[in-house]
Amino acid sequence: MACEDGGVIKGNINKIVISTDSYTVKPIFFPGGDIGKLAAAGSINDVAVMGATPTYALDTVVVEEGFLVSDLQRIVKSMINVFKAENVRIISGDFKVMPKGQIDGVIITTTVLGVLDGEPILDSGAKPGDHVIVSGTIGDHGAVITAYQYGINPESEGLTSDCGSIVPVMKIAQKIGGIHAAKDPTRGGLAMALNEIAEKSGVSIWIDESKIPIRENVRALMEMLGIDPVYMACEGRVVLLVDPDKSEDIVVELRKAGYREAEIIGEVKSERPGYVIMETLAGGYRIVEKLRGELTPRIC
Amino acid sequence: MACEDGGVIKGNINKIVISTDSYTVKPIFFPGGDIGKLAAAGSINDVAVMGATPTYALDTVVVEEGFLVSDLQRIVKSMINVFKAENVRIISGDFKVMPKGQIDGVIITTTVLGVLDGEPILDSGAKPGDHVIVSGTIGDHGAVITAYQYGINPESEGLTSDCGSIVPVMKIAQKIGGIHAAKDPTRGGLAMALNEIAEKSGVSIWIDESKIPIRENVRALMEMLGIDPVYMACEGRVVLLVDPDKSEDIVVELRKAGYREAEIIGEVKSERPGYVIMETLAGGYRIVEKLRGELTPRIC
Repeated sequence: MACEDGGVIKGNINKIVISTDSYTVKPIFFPGGDIGKLAAAGSINDVAVMGATPTYALDTVVVEEGFLVSDLQRIVKSMINVFKAENVRIISGDFKVMPKGQIDGVIITTTVLGVLDGEPILDSGAKPGDHVIVSGTIGDHGAVITAYQYGINPESEGLTSDCGSIVPVMKIAQKIGGIHAAKDPTRGGLAMALNEIAEKSGVSIWIDESKIPIRENVRALMEMLGIDPVYMACEGRVVLLVDPDKSEDIVVELRKAGYREAEIIGEVKSERPGYVIMETLAGGYRIVEKLRGELTPRIC
Repeated sequence: MACEDGGVIKGNINKIVISTDSYTVKPIFFPGGDIGKLAAAGSINDVAVMGATPTYALDTVVVEEGFLVSDLQRIVKSMINVFKAENVRIISGDFKVMPKGQIDGVIITTTVLGVLDGEPILDSGAKPGDHVIVSGTIGDHGAVITAYQYGINPESEGLTSDCGSIVPVMKIAQKIGGIHAAKDPTRGGLAMALNEIAEKSGVSIWIDESKIPIRENVRALMEMLGIDPVYMACEGRVVLLVDPDKSEDIVVELRKAGYREAEIIGEVKSERPGYVIMETLAGGYRIVEKLRGELTPRIC
């Protein structure tokens, strides 16, 4: 139960971006993060990709009766640390317990409010000629969770989730400018994010498989499981559709700031609107279809 | 997955009240409402009791795999109806499915933003001399859910939840003025709401058991189960702590508007700060303790 029933925000606010998500990831602790870190970063990222500065947060935690207090403390601490690092203030929350057996572990829902200076960055903003940038390797989070669910220990494979805030990436790119669309490729991965942008912007997006940064161990696991890594969720990456005059600068600055795998992976065209097309390593072209249904339950 | 990652609010906003809650009520359909209606009204009410006008909403829905689509539609429709009736716009949301057996039914989390004109109404605002008003009968929602959980059919007992928006009540009371504190007595009921106000305002609250409006069938069930109805959750009532010069007017106006059981049930004193004291039907006085733990799991 919240102390007051809600939180109050005062100030002269013109535009607010707000996003909410429920996080059900299983397992709750994984290499590179936990459900608390994911819940904070995930909603921060949804606000940041729209060009806003995440400023306030609310959370609800629903746990199973008998859930370890030490685990709960660890998760909540982890969530708070992410919010603190981005100067996001938690203003209200809710906590509930469900009887044993009625919920598996814990579900966290976070809502993040961001203050927007200027116009929001929308999925519909991509323009023919734009370059497509990814801020780092793709599919790392998805690979970790998928490994667990197939009974493979991700740690012994050296897999680590990319779970984290993308605010620093957005700040660097926004400083340079020219961002026409931005999206964090979570459920459904890079494929889903690009398909949504292609559809909403009425353009096609052409990507070059040889340019997509993928960790060797992620690629190996995905080959073994027969899954294309472009469908694997990221939880700390962003795809940027940017003015071709700015793309090099953005990649250079991102690499300087430590995002060494940032890469231009493709471009936007006007023909065949709504499609995402990949030049494959084998040399041909194929349509990157949208995912129907979910590859991995409880990925985030 | 939300279409955009978040919603955008534009306008010259000075003060915002925002609240979030996860709703886990079991059963999901009950006389007087369902989890969708509860999820919408619950978060609307948390914002309204702080004096704000609920304006925007976000929701997340997490369901068990195999959950009936017809049930989901009924619940979502019910949620949307409450928001529509109060002119609250849903601006973003999230939907997730968990594998069979990992969640019992559905959990809905709603976040509501309200625009505040003036200062927020806080739990710390009650003053000695204030009158205590309840807007209607207490414990109706709690009685319904508790009945189910004891294997009693609430319908055959004629029990109905009070689940609903308290915005009309707040509007009437705010028009008259003099509200120093307001709270919707949800988990822990009237007892918990008054204890929180007494503690935070540094006052004592004296209530008269004979004045508290309680339906006969609620009273009968509570007697049978040995539970004091003051601990039973309401989901469509509000407790107002108001200037004694305004209390009569507020009750008269509420009754005129159809809230026929609205009643002045007590007053605020400065002595014994932090305590809630009830003059019982038997004639004596007793301290209304705070609830430790939960009487009924998944009450809301």
